[in-house]
This record gives sequence, structure tokens and C-alpha cells, in this order.
Amino acid sequence: MTPFSAIFVPQELRDAVSDHAWVQGMLDAERALAQACAAAGLVPQEAAARIAEACRAELYDPEQLAEEGRAVGNPAEPLVRALRERVGPDAADAVHPGATSQDVVDTAAMLVSRRAVSLVLARLDGLADGCAELARTHRSTPMAARTLLQQAVPTTFGLKAAGWLAGSVEARRTLAAVRGERLAAQLGGAAGTLAALGEDALEVVRRYAEELELAEPVLPWHTSRQRIAELGAALAAAAGAAAKVGVDVTLLAQTEVAEVAETSPGGSSTMPHKRNPISSALAVACARLASAHASVLLTSPAHEHERAAGSWHAEWEALSGALSFAGGAAAAAADAVIGLEIDSERMRANLDASGGLVVAERISYALAPRLGRGEAHAVVAAAASARSFREALLADGRVGLSAEELDSLLDPSGYLGSAEALVDRALAVYEGAR
Amino acid sequence: MTPFSAIFVPQELRDAVSDHAWVQGMLDAERALAQACAAAGLVPQEAAARIAEACRAELYDPEQLAEEGRAVGNPAEPLVRALRERVGPDAADAVHPGATSQDVVDTAAMLVSRRAVSLVLARLDGLADGCAELARTHRSTPMAARTLLQQAVPTTFGLKAAGWLAGSVEARRTLAAVRGERLAAQLGGAAGTLAALGEDALEVVRRYAEELELAEPVLPWHTSRQRIAELGAALAAAAGAAAKVGVDVTLLAQTEVAEVAETSPGGSSTMPHKRNPISSALAVACARLASAHASVLLTSPAHEHERAAGSWHAEWEALSGALSFAGGAAAAAADAVIGLEIDSERMRANLDASGGLVVAERISYALAPRLGRGEAHAVVAAAASARSFREALLADGRVGLSAEELDSLLDPSGYLGSAEALVDRALAVYEGAR
Amino acid sequence: MTPFSAIFVPQELRDAVSDHAWVQGMLDAERALAQACAAAGLVPQEAAARIAEACRAELYDPEQLAEEGRAVGNPAEPLVRALRERVGPDAADAVHPGATSQDVVDTAAMLVSRRAVSLVLARLDGLADGCAELARTHRSTPMAARTLLQQAVPTTFGLKAAGWLAGSVEARRTLAAVRGERLAAQLGGAAGTLAALGEDALEVVRRYAEELELAEPVLPWHTSRQRIAELGAALAAAAGAAAKVGVDVTLLAQTEVAEVAETSPGGSSTMPHKRNPISSALAVACARLASAHASVLLTSPAHEHERAAGSWHAEWEALSGALSFAGGAAAAAADAVIGLEIDSERMRANLDASGGLVVAERISYALAPRLGRGEAHAVVAAAASARSFREALLADGRVGLSAEELDSLLDPSGYLGSAEALVDRALAVYEGAR
Amino acid sequence: MTPFSAIFVPQELRDAVSDHAWVQGMLDAERALAQACAAAGLVPQEAAARIAEACRAELYDPEQLAEEGRAVGNPAEPLVRALRERVGPDAADAVHPGATSQDVVDTAAMLVSRRAVSLVLARLDGLADGCAELARTHRSTPMAARTLLQQAVPTTFGLKAAGWLAGSVEARRTLAAVRGERLAAQLGGAAGTLAALGEDALEVVRRYAEELELAEPVLPWHTSRQRIAELGAALAAAAGAAAKVGVDVTLLAQTEVAEVAETSPGGSSTMPHKRNPISSALAVACARLASAHASVLLTSPAHEHERAAGSWHAEWEALSGALSFAGGAAAAAADAVIGLEIDSERMRANLDASGGLVVAERISYALAPRLGRGEAHAVVAAAASARSFREALLADGRVGLSAEELDSLLDPSGYLGSAEALVDRALAVYEGAR
Repeated sequence: MTPFSAIFVPQELRDAVSDHAWVQGMLDAERALAQACAAAGLVPQEAAARIAEACRAELYDPEQLAEEGRAVGNPAEPLVRALRERVGPDAADAVHPGATSQDVVDTAAMLVSRRAVSLVLARLDGLADGCAELARTHRSTPMAARTLLQQAVPTTFGLKAAGWLAGSVEARRTLAAVRGERLAAQLGGAAGTLAALGEDALEVVRRYAEELELAEPVLPWHTSRQRIAELGAALAAAAGAAAKVGVDVTLLAQTEVAEVAETSPGGSSTMPHKRNPISSALAVACARLASAHASVLLTSPAHEHERAAGSWHAEWEALSGALSFAGGAAAAAADAVIGLEIDSERMRANLDASGGLVVAERISYALAPRLGRGEAHAVVAAAASARSFREALLADGRVGLSAEELDSLLDPSGYLGSAEALVDRALAVYEGAR
Repeated sequence: MTPFSAIFVPQELRDAVSDHAWVQGMLDAERALAQACAAAGLVPQEAAARIAEACRAELYDPEQLAEEGRAVGNPAEPLVRALRERVGPDAADAVHPGATSQDVVDTAAMLVSRRAVSLVLARLDGLADGCAELARTHRSTPMAARTLLQQAVPTTFGLKAAGWLAGSVEARRTLAAVRGERLAAQLGGAAGTLAALGEDALEVVRRYAEELELAEPVLPWHTSRQRIAELGAALAAAAGAAAKVGVDVTLLAQTEVAEVAETSPGGSSTMPHKRNPISSALAVACARLASAHASVLLTSPAHEHERAAGSWHAEWEALSGALSFAGGAAAAAADAVIGLEIDSERMRANLDASGGLVVAERISYALAPRLGRGEAHAVVAAAASARSFREALLADGRVGLSAEELDSLLDPSGYLGSAEALVDRALAVYEGAR
Repeated sequence: MTPFSAIFVPQELRDAVSDHAWVQGMLDAERALAQACAAAGLVPQEAAARIAEACRAELYDPEQLAEEGRAVGNPAEPLVRALRERVGPDAADAVHPGATSQDVVDTAAMLVSRRAVSLVLARLDGLADGCAELARTHRSTPMAARTLLQQAVPTTFGLKAAGWLAGSVEARRTLAAVRGERLAAQLGGAAGTLAALGEDALEVVRRYAEELELAEPVLPWHTSRQRIAELGAALAAAAGAAAKVGVDVTLLAQTEVAEVAETSPGGSSTMPHKRNPISSALAVACARLASAHASVLLTSPAHEHERAAGSWHAEWEALSGALSFAGGAAAAAADAVIGLEIDSERMRANLDASGGLVVAERISYALAPRLGRGEAHAVVAAAASARSFREALLADGRVGLSAEELDSLLDPSGYLGSAEALVDRALAVYEGAR
Repeated sequence: MTPFSAIFVPQELRDAVSDHAWVQGMLDAERALAQACAAAGLVPQEAAARIAEACRAELYDPEQLAEEGRAVGNPAEPLVRALRERVGPDAADAVHPGATSQDVVDTAAMLVSRRAVSLVLARLDGLADGCAELARTHRSTPMAARTLLQQAVPTTFGLKAAGWLAGSVEARRTLAAVRGERLAAQLGGAAGTLAALGEDALEVVRRYAEELELAEPVLPWHTSRQRIAELGAALAAAAGAAAKVGVDVTLLAQTEVAEVAETSPGGSSTMPHKRNPISSALAVACARLASAHASVLLTSPAHEHERAAGSWHAEWEALSGALSFAGGAAAAAADAVIGLEIDSERMRANLDASGGLVVAERISYALAPRLGRGEAHAVVAAAASARSFREALLADGRVGLSAEELDSLLDPSGYLGSAEALVDRALAVYEGAR
């Protein structure tokens, strides 16, 4: 239902979750089933071959499948009918043997997800690459760290980018693991006992999963939806990692902060000074939508008995949306960081604007060994409320530092702590993960 | 992104939230703005007339607008450019005077909502009509009331349907009120001060709202989104009323209960006995999706300053989805109740299956005046655990009722309480609301 | 389960949703029921009087009620037992006549909500008062309006505060309407037919509602939870209005913006320069939690048949949380605005920092009549990318403005549009609403 | 805020997330920090020892900490002050060296989670054990499988229980993995650079994590909250596995189905026949609440810069709630399955009630090889609409089966497919996981 979806979601991803893609997923399931049954001797090889030929999505009209599907509540039943018609009477009996509509739709969901997740992962890779580049280049570029949006102490822009990087790498790892381990074939028959497949049922399941290169589940999972929930959670987390970048870039790009600018900010014909961080805003918007869709997958009512009356049907939209918007978030965040313009002079100017207050903590710790923590803080607090922090410290007899010593302490670039070492740690993890 | 959307959402509603509909909404806003400005003497009448002619959605390609809109984060900016080009140099300056993209998109959201809500209301009307018919017809048809899904005491099917009816009427009232009172024009200019419209700005706003037949807000509401949240809540409530019907019908249609059947239940080629309550399941699924979309509108992070960086952009999909799936839920629930087959014999049989236990409460209350509440309960509890409740009561000397008296008390149709009077109350409200 | 709840929720509100308050609500329901039955002649007046005396929460141990309630899934059943024991055998039979546990718990929910909502409303009033004060005082104080967090055009701080004010007033109105119209007595008996109350049942319901000063519903609403959902939506909206204030104050209080400071910002012993906008952060946090709790009320699965198996039980926590955190959000936002320190010089300095670019729109519109919109924008855009916007405009022969004329146009305080008039509109609504 | 929390959450778990537990968590962090610093030579060993002695929660008043914490927005700052006071001037300077409040609160969150998750896991173990027992005992007990709540084909109760088992085992594995790998120490100092800890900072972090037996993170994770989100997702999934049991038991316990009954169902004094599946209802309610709390952790707005203004503060309640209610859900579901009364005769009777229709699929597949799939279905469908399915089949010349052959096919216990083999697979995984 997304209006103007091209604003949010890359074309590739929209294609990957389109009706066409879902139809192809269902047809892939049907082909694999026919082949698995043929291998087990349950249907003729020629029939399976004829079915395989007919399993191309372009031969079917998704809109018509949906309209016919309304009466039975899913698109698989009309697709099976259409497929039977297409393969002709000889092969028709070999179509969909022993399976139920949910087998086909759930397997399609897994195949759609496999393809779409790979696109999301590619976007996360782009995001991670962009962040790594920034982290490396600005490993030692001082800037103000901000807590509750207030300047706290110095950090480096590299460490900020390393935080984004670590988030992307973490999200990528989790999502890749779900893709690798949790996407499973679905085949249970009418209600999960595989009764219509007879003695060879479990062997058919094994071959079917193998054919599709999906995991073989311990049990049919018609109403055990944890793998769907895990996929949803991983997509929400990926979108969240992207949104973190979007929020930080938006804040850093504020007119009054002006430390970064997106490489292609959005303009305004009447306000030529505007450099709207559009990609960042889209990352945030997509993350919000990905979360909402994922929450349907994560927090649904339990699926009743052997097939749910509603909770199952709600998953298709939620899954398509979570995949799309997670990819949209990662793509937009990548757009935001790639080529991000960094104004290190402005970072320094913002750091210096407080006249040394941004390293008040450092002065405090420097004085503490001699004065005790309590008095050290009192000295610093008093100086902090003076007109000039530096002058007040120099004037306070308890401080006992020369102007030179004090100026050295007040230099924010000398109080970066472990920022650079932490950047190196994050880069090492990133490089190890490639 | 909804796969197979025709399964869930009526065509009319899909059209009402389509990209085409959004484009028309934006164009309606532009036309009204030009006309309001012309009336205020800010732009030439002829230019406004030329603009009005060009404000037909079929003249623009939504996909292209979306692609161009990605750079600026919204579809209004490219639309304004295209509109200017179309009206030619003489009228171009009269396009979009003093307005900002959000003015146009937000106004379009209101117009899209107005149209789509009217379709949702029509579906709720259908649902209410169907429920009223059932409530009237089965005002006195005894059935078991069930709490925690256990038979409790008798009720009538009419009262159950009256409950669905009251829910639909309530949801309709709330949604109609939001449509009538809370859909407001948006016009604030670049950041809510209307500065570019000069002295006449507020007059232009008044005319603009009038032209669009939308409410005139006290302030521009670029970042004050309560009307959007209220709309979301009303749509979620409407979907919830539909889902209540879906859940109850699904439960009543269970093989072991079999008190109702949808008029066109979903079948299965291999299981001809199945009478799947598909419409009910779709109502539940749609309600889940409507809720999830509405929750984006209801629980979004606050919109920053004078335009949000992301929260705004996330609304378009959420609103379209909430409208669509609320309508889908109401339509499916209406499908479920209209022509619903009621098996009043089975209702009676289910009531009788407990051998009178379903009116144990009645016996208890009947004995209490003489035995005291405590002993009355003890007598009833003892009899309840016997093989035959009736025989045990007759055999218990404390009961002191003749077989005739007891049988009269044990008749579930004699213990309907105020069920019929309550049905009448609900019908009166329904009829008053038409 | 809230850790350190005093950080988030005022004591009064915590009391209002405490176990004690819920017990008192249940007892109020029992007292009203006994009195209504006595008035209808169903139980003796003396028994009703004895019951009334025993209906004081301090006589019961909520923890014990909860522990005993686990076996039956609600606290009303053990409370009724305790109440019967306390009033003695003569009055015991007059306790809880014809009612079910849900009647008592739902009515208690309404009474708890009535009290707690009044506390939330008082906090919203405080917030509105604080915003109104700011809107009035700073009606004409120029500051930068910001879209996507970028300076756009000038506005006044008064208009920003008026936006907060309008949000609070709107939220207050909606919440007060729900409190006034939607809080209804619950009395349906075992399953909504009121059978155990006999002929006089509806009369008892009427008196019961009257006694409690709650609305009398058309039908018992055991599984028709729209009023609960509306309450949840109104609480989420109230919290959202508070969060809007929190977000804006946090952004304005940033070190680099520094236009406002909370009157009691949070400090840091080692970073004496920090002025953490703690109240604003708490408003945002509370709003997030209020939303999450409200979403349980808004988006729950439908309640099955005549009493839900789980969805009902989940409401108690969700309702208590939504009430508490909505109140916490409003209280924290009020703390943020009351005494908010406004630095109008800094507002002006931030406006001036762009060297006139913040009024680029104005120049553009000023030149358009003579040059045409297109060329006017081109002139302004060219100047905007020069070192000095003003100098570039003066140097451009097409501009045709004297330095004096240009400086007048470049003065941000001359481009406030309808800001002041809009402030007046919002104040008028606020004053009308008191 | 949970009213009557003992109804929902086991005492142990309430204790594990109590204010007391959070205070102890913060104190454990302080002790570990002092010890790590002492080991690195940054503070005296004796001071660290004195601090360790003072790190007992019973020495502090959580309510007071919360009240004082309101001003700074967290409970750590007042706790540090109280701890300094308690250890006296000599050790005071060794308290909280180089740390920030978030370090302490986040580490406490991890410690609280570690303890509470272990309690949730124990409940999941209990649930799994109960399910395994049922799966083993009823491996071959025939019952109707139900899709969309309609009887579909036979299955075994063992397979249903095996599905619950697999869900519990899966949820347990995921949650245990999060507990084992993702709970990490937090130590970053004022804004993540560890500057105040000087050269040895990373060594202090290493020792601190080691001391606490928590993972050492690559970077401080003040605003990188994926581990929190993963914990939330795992808790929601655990609750979901419990809710699945609750929903199925509730449905099976319906009066008209009556295949199972909880061992201690909830009763009613006036309706002695009621056997309310209270534990199941509580499992469903807890799962709903766990999901809502988890969704705060999963779908929060991104945390800004180096400390969030609100999103962080909202986590404490959400985490405590998710832990509590996930545990409550697992505990209630375990209560539901342990001792669950199984009525295998009723299961058989329900299966038989359709007169063989429940194996219509089998007849269809049996006839297909000879008649072709199409005609086989037509034969079966025709018979299905007759008064007696069996008689109609016998009467249809195309069927060609003797009464004996037909009766054998119509026996539901002969059409269990791979149910038993699947039970064995699930049990093997369960046993392998112990």
C-alpha cells in the first residue's frame, strides 16, 4: 500500500517482494515438490519435468490469483489449479502431491526472504564500508561527544563512525545467521502429519528441502513461527542500526552544529541555504516502518492448532514490509555516509567554543590526587561558572598549574582517551567479518 | 508492499489509497491554493484557472514523481515542478505560492483519508446491517454463553449479534466524528508562519480550507500530529470491531461447535467436509495489520521543531495501510455475517449437552433464599459432580423441588435474563444512528 | 515492575493505580451493587449498610488477594470471599449478588481511571499554563524555525510555545471527553444477560451506574473493549503532546544552540558545564512507555465470546502503565517548561549567523514580481553560495535594491509572517477551554 | 505498575527485577570497577576492599535513590553519593573512578537480566519437560488436527505436544544463547572514550568484565542497543512459545471439545461445571504483556549521539517487564501442561463424529490412482454431502472397495502419517538439548 514506494525502497528490493516474486516462490516450491516426489517414485519423472517447465511466474497473473484467492484465503490454491491446467491432464495429478496451501506459501515466504535478505545484506555492507572509511580517515579527528545532546567530553569522529560501523557489522552478522540457519522448507501436508505422502514422506521432505537449498526443519512449522519472528527481529535490528546513523547525521548536520553534510542534501528552491539531510530522514522513516512490520511478526497472537485463522495471513504483508523497509533503511543510511562531508575545523571550533569546559572532567581528575576529589570538583565547578574558565583556574591558588601546564590540559585533542584504540578494535572486527 | 492485496482489501479502497489518489490529493491542494490566492488577489484569476485545468492526476506519472522525489524526500516538490511546466511560463509563478511541500502532502493525506474513510464507513454500515438482521431474527434463540471459552449460562444468539452490532455502531460513530471534525487543511508555508503569503495569509488559509471542505485548524499542524493519531486510533478501533466478529464466528464455526457457518466457506479439494471461515480469518488478519499500521500513527516519536526528520515521512505508508486494512477488516467481517447460517438446533443441543449444568447458577440462586447461599452452592456443587445433575438434585432432600419444578428451572430457554431487552436496546441505538 | 518508579511517575499517580486503589475500586463496585440491589428490594437494607462499612481497602491485603487470585485468574473472587467473611453470615448473601468477577474488576478499572485521569489532566493543565505563559511572553521573540533540523525561516518562540500549548489543550480536551463520556459501569452477571438479577436487572444496572457516577452502557461490555481502547488512545496522545515539548526543549538546549535551558537541569560532578535537560528526557521516556502500554489496549486480539481468555487479564497492567506514564510525561514536560530559561539574544544570534540566508525566501519573493519567480530564485541561489549573501545581492545588478532596502528585507524580525496572530489564536482557544 | 502482580509473575522473578535487585546490580558494578582499578594500580587495594564491603543493597533505600534520582534522571548518581558517604573520606575517591552513571545502570541491567533470564529458562525447562512427557505418553493417541479451527485430518496428541515442545526448546536455546553471549559489561566513562581512566583504560575494562563474568564488548555500547533488542526479541519469543500452549489448551478445553482439562482449573461458586483454563489464559495474557514490553526494546527510536535523551531511560521498565512477563508466561504454560488431563476417548469420539469425513483426504488419495485425481475428488465430494459418507461411498460403483477395505481406510488411527516419527524427532532434539 506504500504510496510513492520508490522514495523509500530500492527497485531491486521492491521487485524481490513483489507479487511476481511471491508467485515464483510458490512455483519453486511446487517444482521442488514434484521433483522430490519423482525421486521418491511417487510421481512420474516426465510429469515432474513438465511441471518444472510450467513453474515460471510470467505464465501467471498475480492479480487474478489474488482475486480468486480471496475465496479461500490464500493465493496457492488458485495457483495450483492454474498449474494443473497448464501442465495438462497427464501431469495434473503430479502437481502439489500431499501438500497443503500453507506448505507452498510458507516455502515461498522463505525463498522471497532469502533473496530479499541478500539485498538487505548488500546494503548493510555498503553502509559498513562507508562507516569504515570514515572511521579510518577520522580516527583521530577531535570532536565533542554529546550526552543528552549536551557537549560532554572530547571524542573523535572516527569513534563515532566506528560505533555506526560496529552496529552495522553486528546487524549484518545476526541477519546473515538467520538467513543461513533459520530459513527452512515447509512441508507438512493437510495438517502436519504428511499422511498423504505415505511411507516416504520424511524422505520427500528431505529431498524437497535439499532441492530448495533450505534447512530441513525438525517438524513442520505451520503454527510454530519462531523462525519468522527471528527474521523479523533481525530485520528490525538492521533497520535500527541504519536509523542510528540517520539520527546522528541529522543532528550533526544541524545549522548550528554544521559538522557534517550529506553529499547530496535536499534543497529548496526558495531557501537555497537548506542542506536537508534527506537520506538520514529516510533512514529514520524506513526504520520506523520496518519496526512496525516486524512487530507483527514478533508479537502476533499465537497461531491456533495446526493452522491459524488470521495470524498466518497477516504475515505476508508484514514480512514483505519488514524486508523492504529494512533494506530501504540500510540503503538510505549508506547514501548518508558515503561521501559524507566532514568539517573537522567546525568540529574543533565547536569543541573550543566552551573555553575549555569540555575538558572540565580532565582538570577535575588532574587536580584530584593533590586536592582530593571533593575539593578538586569544587575548584573546577567554581571556575566553570566564571566568565573565563581558564582565567579562573589560573587565578585560583589551589590549582597550582602553570599557564603552560593548564593550556596543555585544556587542549581537547589531548583528552581523547582510548578513542583511537577503540576505532582500531571496531575496524579489526569489521575486517575479520568480511 | 502487500502481496496479493486483492485477497485483503477491496478494489475501491486500494484505488482510494493508490499513488494516483495521492497525486490527485496533492493536485487538489494546489488547485485550492491557487484559487484561494486568486480570490485574495495574490495571483491572477486566469493563472488559477489554467492551474485548475492541469490539476488532474492522469497527467502525471506517479512512479516518476516518486523517483524524483527520493532526492528531496517527498513527491510534492517534483509534482510542483511538473505542474509549473505544464501550465507554462505565464501561470507558473501562480503555482504553489507561499506553500511548502508538507502543506501539499498533508492536505493530500486528509483528502485521501476523507475518501477512504467514507469507504470504510460504508463497510461498517454493511457489517452493522448484517449484525442487526441477525440480532433481530435471533433475539430469542437460546445458545450457550461462553466465558474463557467454557459454557457459562444461556444467552441468545441475538444478544451475541447485538454485541457485534453495538461494536460496529460505536466504531462507526467514532470514525465518522474524526472524519467530520478532525480532517483539516494544512497550510503554513516554509515553517508555519505563512510569511510568504504576506498580510492576507490567514484569509488565504480560510479560503483554502473552505475550497477543500476541510476544517480550518487553529495553527498549522506540521509537527502537531494529534489528528493523525486520532484517525489511526479510530481506524484501529473499527478494525477491532470487525475482528471481534471474526473471532466469534471462527469459534462458533468449529467442527465441534458447529452453530454457525459462513455462507461461502472456504473449501478444500481433498477435504470436502471443511467449511473454513475464510472471511472471519481475513477480518482477523486485516485487523492485525490495521493495528500495526495505526500504531505507527499513534506511537511515533514526537515530530521535531517545525518539520520532522523521518517521523513525517513514515506516516504515508502507515496511513494508507491503516485505511486499507481497516476497510478490509470491515468488509471481511460483513462478508462473514451476511448470510451467516445459524443452526439453532445445534445451539440448543450444545446447551443441553451438559444435562442442565449450564443453568447451575439458576438452581443455586433458586435454592439460596431457603438454604442460604452457602448451602445452596454446596448442594448444587455436589449434584454437579454426580453422573446426572438432574437425578442428583431430585435425590437430594434439601432441594425440595418437584420434578416438574426442577425441569422448568433446568430449561435453558427460561434463563435468558435480560438478553432480549438488551437486544432491543442495541437495535434502538443502531436505528437511531442511521 | 517499573524500577525506580519515583523517577518517572509522581507519587499521587502511583498511588492512584496502586493495588490499594484497585482494591478500593472493587469495593466501591461491591458497595454500589449492594445498595442498588437494596434499593430494588433484592437484598436487605441493613445488609447493604453492613457491606458498605466493610468496603474499605485498608481492611484487605492486596498481596494475599493476588496470591489467592492466581488460582482463578483475578483478584475479585478472593476479595468477595473475604468481604463475605467480614460482613458475617447475615449479610454474606447480600454480597456480590448476580455479579461476576469481571463486573467488579472492570468497574474498578473505570474508577481507578477516573481518579488517575483527573491527575493526568491536572498535569496537562500545568503544562498548558506553562506553555501559555511562554507563548504570551515571547509572542514576538524572533528565532529560527527549523525543518529537518535545518534553519528555514524566522518564527517566534511564542509560536513554538503556542504549538506546544495547542497540543496540550487538544490532548486535554480529548482525554477529558473520554473521562466524561466513556467511563461506564460494568454489570452483566455471569455472561452478560444479568439473569441472576431477575426482572429488576436493568433497574439495578441503572442504579448501580448512578451510585458510581459512571455512564450506563447500552450493553454489558465484557468483550466489547472500545472504551478501553479510546482511553488508551487518549492517554497515548496526551503523552505524545508532552513528548513534543520534551524533544523540542532538548534540541533547543543543545550546547551549540543554547536558546533555552531547563530551570533545574541535571548536572554532573565532573562536568560542571552540563545542563542536562532531564525533565525533557523523562517526558520522552515516559511517552514511549505510555505508548507501549496503550498499544496493548489499542491493538489487542479481539476478546473471545463473553469473556476473553487472556486479553482481558492483560489490560490491568497496560491500563495502570498507560495512566502512570501519561501522567509522568505530562508532569515532566510541565517541569521542563515552567521556568524555562529563554535566551532571546542567543535566538537572535543564531538567526543572524547565516548572514541573512534565513530570509532568503523573503528576498526571493520580493524579487519575483519584477524578475519572475525563476530568475528571482536564480539570483538568490547565486548570492547564497557567495561568501557574503548581502554583498553578493548588492553587487548583482538585477536585484535593484538599495542597501537600506536590502537591510530592511534581511532583518529576520521583519519576516515573522502571521506568527503573532497565530499565537493569539492558540491563546484564545486555551483561554476558552479553561 | 502491575496491579496484583502475584497473579502473573512468580515471586522469584519479581524479586529478580525489583528495585533491590537493580540496586544490587549497580553495587556489583561499583565493586567490580573498584577492584579492576585496584588491580591496575589506579586505586588503593584497601579502598577497593572497603567499597566491596559497602556494596550490599540492603544498606540503601531504593525509594530514596529514586526520589533523588529524579533530578538527574537516573538512580546511579545518588547511589554513588551514598556509597561515597558510607565508605568514608579515605575510600570515597576510589568509588566510581572514571565511570559514568550509564556504565553502572547498564551493567546492572545486564546482571539483573542474567539472574532473571536464568529463572525464565528454568520455567521454560519445566514447560519443555511437561510437553515432553505428554509427547511421549501420547505419541500415538489419535485426535483431530484442526486448521482454521476446523477438523482437517487425524494427528496424534503426541505430535501436538511435540510441537509445543519444539517451540519451548527453540525458545530456550535462543534465550540461553543471548544470555551466554550477549550480556556484556558496560564501561565507557563520560562519553565512551574512557579518557578518565588514562592509559590503562582498556585493561580496566577487561578486568571489570572478567570480575563480573560478563562479555567484554568491542566498544562501549551506550547508544548501540542491539544486545538489548536481541534480549527483548528472545524474551518475546519465549513468551510466544508459552502462549501457543495456552491457546491450544484453551481451545482443547472448550466445553464442546473437552479433550483436555488443566489439572487445577479455575472454578466458579455459582457455576460448578466450569473448568476454566486459568493457567492457559494467564500464559496468553503474560505473553501479550511481554511482547509489549519487548517491543519498546526492539523498536525504540535510535539513541542519539553518545547518550540518548529518553530512549535509554525507557528501557529499564521495558526490560523488567519483558523479563517478568516472559517468565510469567512460561510458568503459567508449565502449570497448564503439567498434569494436564487428557481424555483420549473424547479425542477419539470427536474424530469419529464426522462419520469418516476427517479421513476424506485419505479416501481421495486412495481412489486417485485408479480414477484419476479429478474423479476421485468428485466421488468423495459427492459422498461427503450425503447423509452417511460411508454408505454413500459403498453405494457408489466407482469406488470399488469392499466394506472391510473401506472401514479400514475410514479408521482415523490408520491415517496418522509420520506423526509418530515426528514426535520421535522432536524428543530427540529435546533430549539432545538437555
